[in-house]
Amino acid sequence: MAAVIKHLLGIRELSTDQIIHLLDTAETFRDISKREIKKVPALRGRTVINLFFEPSTRTRTSFEIAAKRLSADAVNISVSTSSVTKGETLMDTARNLQAMAPDCIVIRHSSSGAPYHLARVCDAAIVNAGDGAHEHPTQALLDALTIREHKPQFEGLRVAILGDVLHSRVARSNIYLLSKLGARVAVAGPGTLVPAEFAGLIEAGIRLERRIEDAVVDADVVMILRVQRERQTDAFFPSMREYAVHYGLHLNHLSLAAPDAIVMHPGPMNRGIEISSEIADGGRSLILDQVTNGVAVRMAVLYLLAGAPTGDDETKRATPDAESRSGSVKRQRSRKRSLREEN
Amino acid sequence: MAAVIKHLLGIRELSTDQIIHLLDTAETFRDISKREIKKVPALRGRTVINLFFEPSTRTRTSFEIAAKRLSADAVNISVSTSSVTKGETLMDTARNLQAMAPDCIVIRHSSSGAPYHLARVCDAAIVNAGDGAHEHPTQALLDALTIREHKPQFEGLRVAILGDVLHSRVARSNIYLLSKLGARVAVAGPGTLVPAEFAGLIEAGIRLERRIEDAVVDADVVMILRVQRERQTDAFFPSMREYAVHYGLHLNHLSLAAPDAIVMHPGPMNRGIEISSEIADGGRSLILDQVTNGVAVRMAVLYLLAGAPTGDDETKRATPDAESRSGSVKRQRSRKRSLREEN
Amino acid sequence: MAAVIKHLLGIRELSTDQIIHLLDTAETFRDISKREIKKVPALRGRTVINLFFEPSTRTRTSFEIAAKRLSADAVNISVSTSSVTKGETLMDTARNLQAMAPDCIVIRHSSSGAPYHLARVCDAAIVNAGDGAHEHPTQALLDALTIREHKPQFEGLRVAILGDVLHSRVARSNIYLLSKLGARVAVAGPGTLVPAEFAGLIEAGIRLERRIEDAVVDADVVMILRVQRERQTDAFFPSMREYAVHYGLHLNHLSLAAPDAIVMHPGPMNRGIEISSEIADGGRSLILDQVTNGVAVRMAVLYLLAGAPTGDDETKRATPDAESRSGSVKRQRSRKRSLREEN
Repeated sequence: MAAVIKHLLGIRELSTDQIIHLLDTAETFRDISKREIKKVPALRGRTVINLFFEPSTRTRTSFEIAAKRLSADAVNISVSTSSVTKGETLMDTARNLQAMAPDCIVIRHSSSGAPYHLARVCDAAIVNAGDGAHEHPTQALLDALTIREHKPQFEGLRVAILGDVLHSRVARSNIYLLSKLGARVAVAGPGTLVPAEFAGLIEAGIRLERRIEDAVVDADVVMILRVQRERQTDAFFPSMREYAVHYGLHLNHLSLAAPDAIVMHPGPMNRGIEISSEIADGGRSLILDQVTNGVAVRMAVLYLLAGAPTGDDETKRATPDAESRSGSVKRQRSRKRSLREEN
Repeated sequence: MAAVIKHLLGIRELSTDQIIHLLDTAETFRDISKREIKKVPALRGRTVINLFFEPSTRTRTSFEIAAKRLSADAVNISVSTSSVTKGETLMDTARNLQAMAPDCIVIRHSSSGAPYHLARVCDAAIVNAGDGAHEHPTQALLDALTIREHKPQFEGLRVAILGDVLHSRVARSNIYLLSKLGARVAVAGPGTLVPAEFAGLIEAGIRLERRIEDAVVDADVVMILRVQRERQTDAFFPSMREYAVHYGLHLNHLSLAAPDAIVMHPGPMNRGIEISSEIADGGRSLILDQVTNGVAVRMAVLYLLAGAPTGDDETKRATPDAESRSGSVKRQRSRKRSLREEN
Repeated sequence: MAAVIKHLLGIRELSTDQIIHLLDTAETFRDISKREIKKVPALRGRTVINLFFEPSTRTRTSFEIAAKRLSADAVNISVSTSSVTKGETLMDTARNLQAMAPDCIVIRHSSSGAPYHLARVCDAAIVNAGDGAHEHPTQALLDALTIREHKPQFEGLRVAILGDVLHSRVARSNIYLLSKLGARVAVAGPGTLVPAEFAGLIEAGIRLERRIEDAVVDADVVMILRVQRERQTDAFFPSMREYAVHYGLHLNHLSLAAPDAIVMHPGPMNRGIEISSEIADGGRSLILDQVTNGVAVRMAVLYLLAGAPTGDDETKRATPDAESRSGSVKRQRSRKRSLREEN
């Protein structure tokens, strides 16, 4: 089954092939940011629009740097509520941007599904940079890339996801991705934060725990979610203090995990709330590797979606033999040759 | 009469030659955005500043994309009211930016005439991207480019402009441009929205109507203006509901127009208020073509104003023989050769 | 003593060598902005992040233009208070940006010392673009470059700095720089605005005066500081009116200065408050030259800090023989050859 990736809307829709292909491609891009000349001409003359309806310094910067290191023209649009009062619908905004012939639109929006609406009316490749509490696919991909650097395989890998699951598109995308790759996921958080919907995931192999200790036991990977304080309009838990005591990750929890367990957090961190500084800054923490891999993953996504010649879709295709990593390495090698450093 | 364009402040000051030359040049740039490599080196090493004192996602994005596709360095400055409290005058801001040696400053400002002030103290080419209720010349140019794609000539063309004329720099620029090119313009809108000033235009061939039906009859082009809800501080009409009923364009109005009438709107649209969705999304609507032509027109403007060698003003000149379109095609052809795709 | 400049945090830490080397380098960059193609490939493939925690149109624009004229990829991050509510510490923000592999981070922050914190956790070169009331080193450098164009030497030069010294990082950086280069500085302003801390500077050769007339007498350079109205939370002086009368610079003050005295102001100006329009727009004013030199100084800073090959630190070094300007001219000449115009 040939697997052309036209848009990146969510992990749910991706095949295992496509996920592996994205990770393999990201790996080839990781080196570029280590060079002195951090730039390849892959997307020269292409236009990438970052359309952010929610503020996000980190994700927008990561996408912008990714676009620029590929030599694309990056255009940022931050849509505050003030300009929404001009009354245009999201669909009209999308159609209008499309009329300016961008190659890719990266969208962050507070409404789940917004990127899907864009994909219906745009020829440009749409990349979901976070939609409501739905998905944040590039985050799950960068998390997977980070895990792959440290663990031999996803099959059977024990992953604990801790915290504010209810609001977390990060959790959702990671659960989809990790399940597809064969990992065994356990989630834990305050009862009010683990929505009923997730019950359906139990059959899919997701384990629900009330206490984080139970989720962390023997875990190879511990993912801590951010308490999204700015969204806590309802009182999901009595206080930050109380959250820290019952659901913050401390060193004693980590001693329950596998001896070589790694710790991840999507950022920005609330130190002393969901994560203690000992853990955040400790030897098991891969939090900054995640950020570094974020640029590589976004370069891969932009390259695969916006970089391929329109006529010849070769590079947009995750070929059937891509499933094994060894197979995909060959493809990378030939691609690498075409990504020669710009000078 | 040689017609060097140093600044683009308003349509009013342009000769017919200059308008045609701008449209011809825009036509040559339209193709660039259809290519895979949407970039030419025409403005490499030139600096274009987008100085926006009013929020405008659409126009700023269009100018930014235009600048980048010409390889210019684009710098965005959004001046919120907060930074105005630092107390600098507009003239001092202009002089300061000039001291950084930009080649072009694109300005949007809520005060009519602001771009003229800049032109007095700046060596850089000044482009008016909308000043108060005065002019929005690139909008009129992109509208004209869109009309020219569908109608054989402007001479005698019947154009109806409907709506919020009082607040509309779009209407004003279009009226100047269309009159200069020989079109017959009729305007209609709520009495309170058609200012007395426009009475003077009657002699210039502009027809004022109270009812939009009367303006639309036999029209070849129907331009609908945006209700600028964010500016309705005074009550010009009782309610949006009432506006929609009396001044919104519906299919039954369109049946009064010429059989091949085209419909335009500068955006962003208030669907269901000044325009019904049937019309906006219908076969006669050229609303998205306008957006596409906007990038081409802005590329042409930036190229003609900021791109020509300073010593040799050849490309800044609308030569006397430019009046006929056939004559200008020759010039385009030679220019096109110099606009070879960057690789 | 070899003097590698890794970060530009303040003038206080720079040696005379390093200051002269920065000014010499800036001089070589000044010409680039006068060319038609205002761009050199010096920082191609390097990433410069402008991280502004305080709004600053002017300084951010100057750094952005400097970066782009060096062909760097410039990424702007404006951190409003709203995103600070996400709860990340400055150090975590810095570590995260570092993980995206920038070559340089330009930071403006309301807290004194913020750039020093960044320098501790970042490999990227850190440039202080103004930190609280502490330092604003590029402003002092551009001021010095401007002085050097008009005065034969700094040794013995009489400089008067007038105004809001208490809040002025500009004053502080200038006092450090001018003292190091041998100038004789006098400061004057409302008693409440000349902090006790400056008393210690008296030994360093700084003269404190109560009346601006006394500071201006025989001055070769008159630097007027901005009244930072947006920071006057406490009432340092009764009213703007009163400030203008007692501490605003008027023509009669200037008649006390040296016959060829030059006048400077860091901008943005409050005309009619700290400076009269006659002086601001008069023949002795170099206010716009300062802005022009600002771009050149920032190009030099970015080039020296982010442009040198990582392995070979040759260009980051202010060689011991750099102290004499004649010696440094030779270095400039060879550097100039390598800064050939991009085409």
